[in-house]
Amino acid sequence: MTVAPPQVTSEIAEKGVLARAAARRLAFASALQRDAALEAIAAALVARQTEIAEANALDMAVARDMGLGEAMLGRLILTPKSVAALAEDVRHVAALPDPIGQTEDMRTLPNGLQVGRKRVPLGVIGVIYESRPNVTVDIAALCIKSGNAALLRGGKEAQHSNRVLAQVVGDACVAAGLPAGSVQLIRSADRALVREMLEARDVIDLLIPRGGADLHRFAVEHAKVPVVTGGIGVVHIYVDAAANLDQAVPICVNAKVQKPSACNAADTFLVHRAVADRFLPRLADAMQAEDVELRVDQAALKTLGERPNVRRATQDDFGFEFLSLRASVRVVDDLDEALDHIAAHGGHSEAILSEDYSAVMRFLNEVDAAAVFANASTRFNDGGQFGLGAEVAISTTKLHARGPMGLKELTSYKWVVLGQGHIRP
Amino acid sequence: MTVAPPQVTSEIAEKGVLARAAARRLAFASALQRDAALEAIAAALVARQTEIAEANALDMAVARDMGLGEAMLGRLILTPKSVAALAEDVRHVAALPDPIGQTEDMRTLPNGLQVGRKRVPLGVIGVIYESRPNVTVDIAALCIKSGNAALLRGGKEAQHSNRVLAQVVGDACVAAGLPAGSVQLIRSADRALVREMLEARDVIDLLIPRGGADLHRFAVEHAKVPVVTGGIGVVHIYVDAAANLDQAVPICVNAKVQKPSACNAADTFLVHRAVADRFLPRLADAMQAEDVELRVDQAALKTLGERPNVRRATQDDFGFEFLSLRASVRVVDDLDEALDHIAAHGGHSEAILSEDYSAVMRFLNEVDAAAVFANASTRFNDGGQFGLGAEVAISTTKLHARGPMGLKELTSYKWVVLGQGHIRP
Repeated sequence: MTVAPPQVTSEIAEKGVLARAAARRLAFASALQRDAALEAIAAALVARQTEIAEANALDMAVARDMGLGEAMLGRLILTPKSVAALAEDVRHVAALPDPIGQTEDMRTLPNGLQVGRKRVPLGVIGVIYESRPNVTVDIAALCIKSGNAALLRGGKEAQHSNRVLAQVVGDACVAAGLPAGSVQLIRSADRALVREMLEARDVIDLLIPRGGADLHRFAVEHAKVPVVTGGIGVVHIYVDAAANLDQAVPICVNAKVQKPSACNAADTFLVHRAVADRFLPRLADAMQAEDVELRVDQAALKTLGERPNVRRATQDDFGFEFLSLRASVRVVDDLDEALDHIAAHGGHSEAILSEDYSAVMRFLNEVDAAAVFANASTRFNDGGQFGLGAEVAISTTKLHARGPMGLKELTSYKWVVLGQGHIRP
Repeated sequence: MTVAPPQVTSEIAEKGVLARAAARRLAFASALQRDAALEAIAAALVARQTEIAEANALDMAVARDMGLGEAMLGRLILTPKSVAALAEDVRHVAALPDPIGQTEDMRTLPNGLQVGRKRVPLGVIGVIYESRPNVTVDIAALCIKSGNAALLRGGKEAQHSNRVLAQVVGDACVAAGLPAGSVQLIRSADRALVREMLEARDVIDLLIPRGGADLHRFAVEHAKVPVVTGGIGVVHIYVDAAANLDQAVPICVNAKVQKPSACNAADTFLVHRAVADRFLPRLADAMQAEDVELRVDQAALKTLGERPNVRRATQDDFGFEFLSLRASVRVVDDLDEALDHIAAHGGHSEAILSEDYSAVMRFLNEVDAAAVFANASTRFNDGGQFGLGAEVAISTTKLHARGPMGLKELTSYKWVVLGQGHIRP
């Protein structure tokens, strides 16, 4: 008698089968059904908050034992107030217009064949994320709204919270008549599963990494499934010779300090030589009031002289994403020099501040970036600010979606062809 | 004195720098300029046809020496007539509407900020293709029309033809004022360069493999740049209990024989049990007249009995892309069994033949495929047939583009934001 070796079954493969089956049914669940599931999730989050609080307390205790900092603990904690807010967010998603089902460009061809493209879900969305457990609920809601199944892989530090939240979401889906595999959490903390998700072409239609630059780079390097990456980019503001300097100072300050850790925060200010003498001292004063350090080139240093928040830039300070209260400054001779600098280092959020119509037009036309701005802060590059209703991610890729991604970017389309016995001649 | 080691510079990296620079300028070349370049290419193809014929004769001589078959030689040869047709194709592309520049959804937000999305080129398109040298010109025309630079890697067997064609195209671009790197051919026949193109993230924004299943699989396996793959898929036609059998027979035959080597040719016929006795003998007769062999399941065999073009199917005959005058047949109990079969094996072009409104609606809604058809041949799944003007490729991926890709699918967008001193609160 021979003994079969123990069957090694991966959690990804197992849950992948369930996710695929769920996706097939979700794809034709009505918007009424999907929205009812979201309402059920919102209600269950509030009804089961004791359970959620207990699980979160376990994660918090472990995190404190490990000596995690206050910022990390703040991202991890779930309070009755934050759970209620999470439920409200889910109701907000339910209230958005249905992103699927719309048939675009339906028309009758000369041979009488009717052809159009119908919006359909992508299928199974994989998401890899870190500490914040509310992402489990946020992304589940966005996936259900768009008719996709979700396969979630949260951080180890939030594992107890994530398990309960995924259970609450899953139970509510089933109670509302959606398939059991609609939202699933990968329970194993084994890091090898991240790599396996990135390669699971049979399971995952789109993978969204939500986390730091390291996770994004790892995903791009190893992914065999389609990945939308974002969140990384050097942001430039060009202050033209014809800038309104009374507007330019507050825009530059806002773009730098309103949220320095954001990907759309300003990194480099390119200042036209003609206004350098008038603009730079005002910029340096305003930045000093906000504790921002400026790393400036030789020309700017000559204008600014010695100041507590100004130091000479090195080459590394250009094309660098600071994500902190630091920025670099370069004086340029003209618009072309600014355009060349941005072409070499930019591509995320790029702004021109100018009252010169032709300079603004050239900048908007010629700069290749996810978002180009005239006379506005780059901090507006955001799905919420752009009126998308919900932001799934910010893409820095050019295919499928660029910049802020809303629900529509979680969809694909299929061609629908209606004939009356048509054959191809 | 030390001697520097010989500089190893890759052709991809070198031409990549030129392509990037060209793409930056092409992105804001006007449609007038791009169309003028296409006109110049069309004229140059005819004016320089002696040169083209001489280069092609070299390729043909090598191919004959190597004993390549007639089909291969037919794909390789360029005659005065085919070059003239190629020039006409380029003029046809020039006459299509401009795919870039359109600003979609421009609107004013509550804070007065104006936000919209403007169609822009992707940047640099890489194309890897085999034998047919006319692809060099076709794809160059599509890239120029859509404002993209092209980096082309043709087959070794067409190398002399490709070099002259790329030269003709490149010279015409420069004469029309477009940058020199707009269209470049990789000259080295080293196969390692294919791998290098697939990994050249700094150079290539979209890679399109045009060739057989092996090339597509290799590209998907090794690509680190975005790749659109297609051309592979198992195609099903479901003949419902309520099918109009007088329509069904010619549709099934057309879908199989109109071009058996095409990816949208029928592979498997799923026949409802209620019509199997009436339909299958007619199908088998019609297929026999076209030399099509049917591989049928047990139930169909019982109905059909012994026939010269009918044999028992194995499991491998289902979920198999024949690309030849063979097809498989399965008798199903109902629509659900057909839907399950298609969910397991399909996803490219899927058709239902039925006069039952609800069955048609369920099929069109529930089948997940690039194109779903009611009462029409699957052979219509084609950019030309769907009225896209030009077909770049047929995508079987769900991201960015699905099914036939036209010029618009060679574009991306950028967000354009117009402010008057706006800062984010």
